Amino acid sequence: MKHAEIIAVGSELLTPFHLDTNSLFLTEELNRLGLAVIRKSIVADDRQALREAFAQALERADLVIATGGLGPTEDDLTREALADLLERRLLPNARVLDEIRERFAHRGRTMTPNNERQALVPEGAMVLPNALGTAPGLWLETRGRVVVLLPGPPGELRHVFTEQVLPQLEKRSGARRMAHRLLRVAGMSESHLDHRIAEIYKRYESVETTILATPEGIEIHLTLWSEDSAEAGRVLDELAGRITMALGEAVFSVDGETLDEVVARELQLSGATIAVAESCTGGMVSARLTNIAGSSVYFRGGVVSYSNEMKTAWVGVPAELIERHGAVSAEVAIAMATGVRRAADATLGVGITGIAGPGGGTPEKPVGTVHFSLADAAGAQERLVRFGGDRDRIRRLASQTALDMIRRYLFRARQGRG
Amino acid sequence: MKHAEIIAVGSELLTPFHLDTNSLFLTEELNRLGLAVIRKSIVADDRQALREAFAQALERADLVIATGGLGPTEDDLTREALADLLERRLLPNARVLDEIRERFAHRGRTMTPNNERQALVPEGAMVLPNALGTAPGLWLETRGRVVVLLPGPPGELRHVFTEQVLPQLEKRSGARRMAHRLLRVAGMSESHLDHRIAEIYKRYESVETTILATPEGIEIHLTLWSEDSAEAGRVLDELAGRITMALGEAVFSVDGETLDEVVARELQLSGATIAVAESCTGGMVSARLTNIAGSSVYFRGGVVSYSNEMKTAWVGVPAELIERHGAVSAEVAIAMATGVRRAADATLGVGITGIAGPGGGTPEKPVGTVHFSLADAAGAQERLVRFGGDRDRIRRLASQTALDMIRRYLFRARQGRG
Repeated sequence: MKHAEIIAVGSELLTPFHLDTNSLFLTEELNRLGLAVIRKSIVADDRQALREAFAQALERADLVIATGGLGPTEDDLTREALADLLERRLLPNARVLDEIRERFAHRGRTMTPNNERQALVPEGAMVLPNALGTAPGLWLETRGRVVVLLPGPPGELRHVFTEQVLPQLEKRSGARRMAHRLLRVAGMSESHLDHRIAEIYKRYESVETTILATPEGIEIHLTLWSEDSAEAGRVLDELAGRITMALGEAVFSVDGETLDEVVARELQLSGATIAVAESCTGGMVSARLTNIAGSSVYFRGGVVSYSNEMKTAWVGVPAELIERHGAVSAEVAIAMATGVRRAADATLGVGITGIAGPGGGTPEKPVGTVHFSLADAAGAQERLVRFGGDRDRIRRLASQTALDMIRRYLFRARQGRG
Repeated sequence: MKHAEIIAVGSELLTPFHLDTNSLFLTEELNRLGLAVIRKSIVADDRQALREAFAQALERADLVIATGGLGPTEDDLTREALADLLERRLLPNARVLDEIRERFAHRGRTMTPNNERQALVPEGAMVLPNALGTAPGLWLETRGRVVVLLPGPPGELRHVFTEQVLPQLEKRSGARRMAHRLLRVAGMSESHLDHRIAEIYKRYESVETTILATPEGIEIHLTLWSEDSAEAGRVLDELAGRITMALGEAVFSVDGETLDEVVARELQLSGATIAVAESCTGGMVSARLTNIAGSSVYFRGGVVSYSNEMKTAWVGVPAELIERHGAVSAEVAIAMATGVRRAADATLGVGITGIAGPGGGTPEKPVGTVHFSLADAAGAQERLVRFGGDRDRIRRLASQTALDMIRRYLFRARQGRG
């Protein structure tokens, strides 16, 4: 087995309101087993369309996985269409029927007749029990190809795949496996990053390197297909190590951790406490610092000092400082960081003031101008960044930059201590 | 024209890291024109696979739209595969080439030879200019069917579709159009909602009613295909009106507005100002209130009073009140709302205190317990809700509930004045 196709079944997936997301989970699992996904199709609840989709997929792929359309209603036609195509009779399966009946009884309800459809099994098919729902999965083989039908609800799909399909596929898949590493980077543009590391990853021709810009930083995906897992892991670790060396502390995670998780862990390790005074990010930095369970240990409090009066009242920024430099200035960011640190009696204070737009920009301080400051007992550092894009993007990138400023400070402090 | 198919081109869309989201935009636009999307396919950057996908789609649909694979690299094979299938020669288009060259010159760079690929146009195709990127779209006709190729980057795709494709399709599509209404509801469970309105929408057999639970409330989609747009609109408005009557003020939007937008608009209309003191939501309520441009008019400031000391220092919650009732209590929520209102000199004050978990719960105050309060000049109202789910879900639902509490207060105040 080398090539797989995924057919997502459901007319609702052909409306503007729904996306098939099950295929991301399935693709990851199949890739891990060394199976490449060569096509995904989204097909309506229509017998003829389904029949044709199965027929065409079986011409191309060793394994065809269809998701959805196994429910009790008349729209659920997946098993009928496949049985029709393969010329297999659909027979009621007594054990499945009993289980469905029991499920209803357990919830104090009587099974309605339409649920009997879910107990229909094509001749020669293997039933894949579904402990989380009434529709079981099905496994069929035809002319050396395998077809798997899975229920559509994501929880049931994952459950049936992991418990029932994975062990079968492991037996049949070749020795070829996919190894994968994910590096996350903050505080660097995508083009700058690529410029720094292109020469390195291009030397690893067998490794597929994908660089993705996301609102939570840049992701570097390293993928290697190999029959020798240990060797593949070694090659990826070597390449990941070289990229990390080239990018330095811009790399904040080599094991899939998010920036919020890394900052939370570093704060916990350091024993430091933190407080935040933010304006243009409007509470997003505090929200991200309190995202992680256990944040009350290090997070003392936050102030969203949108108005100048609140900057003065809550964190003691002198009114005449705002008057002199403007609310969006390095001086005010520093006063916010030191002020909130003092007010909350925290080890570290963060100050953020900027213009998220679309209004409020001036030639000297255009929309996207954001001043950051981080204060500790010894003093305060500050930084100015000009972000592009709309209000939402500026706020997201500014909160990301603030988190990254904290992360870099804690990294350096830890190395200094080490 | 009745039936459309969408082919999303790109090997990255067959990895676990990417989803095709362009098709949602295209589906909405096509539906509006009365075209149903009957299949979506996701195909690798592979000449043979692309050729086959086009051939099969052209057998089923009147219109085939392919997105992506028009760029300058060797992986970009969409136009080659289609020209190959339709047996049309690919010829360099001088005007397109000039425009690409100009684009590079404008950015002070020289065009590299690989960019010439983007100026190749199949014989007989119409070029769809792309002001936002180097790859133009293409429109081809073959045996009464239409094929449209669009660039993959979402901004460019939307631009070329709206400016170039839409006017052409409007000329060719039939009189059948899709009418659509979207109602948004807060403060009610999905099953409770369905129970209240099922009898109503089932009487409208021609209308497709879809109920979706999202983190930002429940959405009720009403869809009706008809040749008589005015009549379809009338039917949908009648049904929307009946649903709104049945659900009362739980319906916060009948025109697609989000809760954040509705609250922002109501605050602006009312002339009120607002301040927030929140604990378990960690800044999310302030962040949502400042999401919308112009929020500085009504948003005075927010406090994330995670620690008891900050509740006392920043919003004047008496330490002995916390001692007596616990930090998570109606009394403390009210003191936070009235305290932050006073401290920020705002018309309205909001207080939120609760347990987001996973730790910190007790038998009397389990994880998910959240107290809300809203204070005005006359006094304070309070509310207790117990949310289920994990930390993230509890925080999201709590911020949604707080926004909805503000929304309902402003609705009622407006009606009282009216």
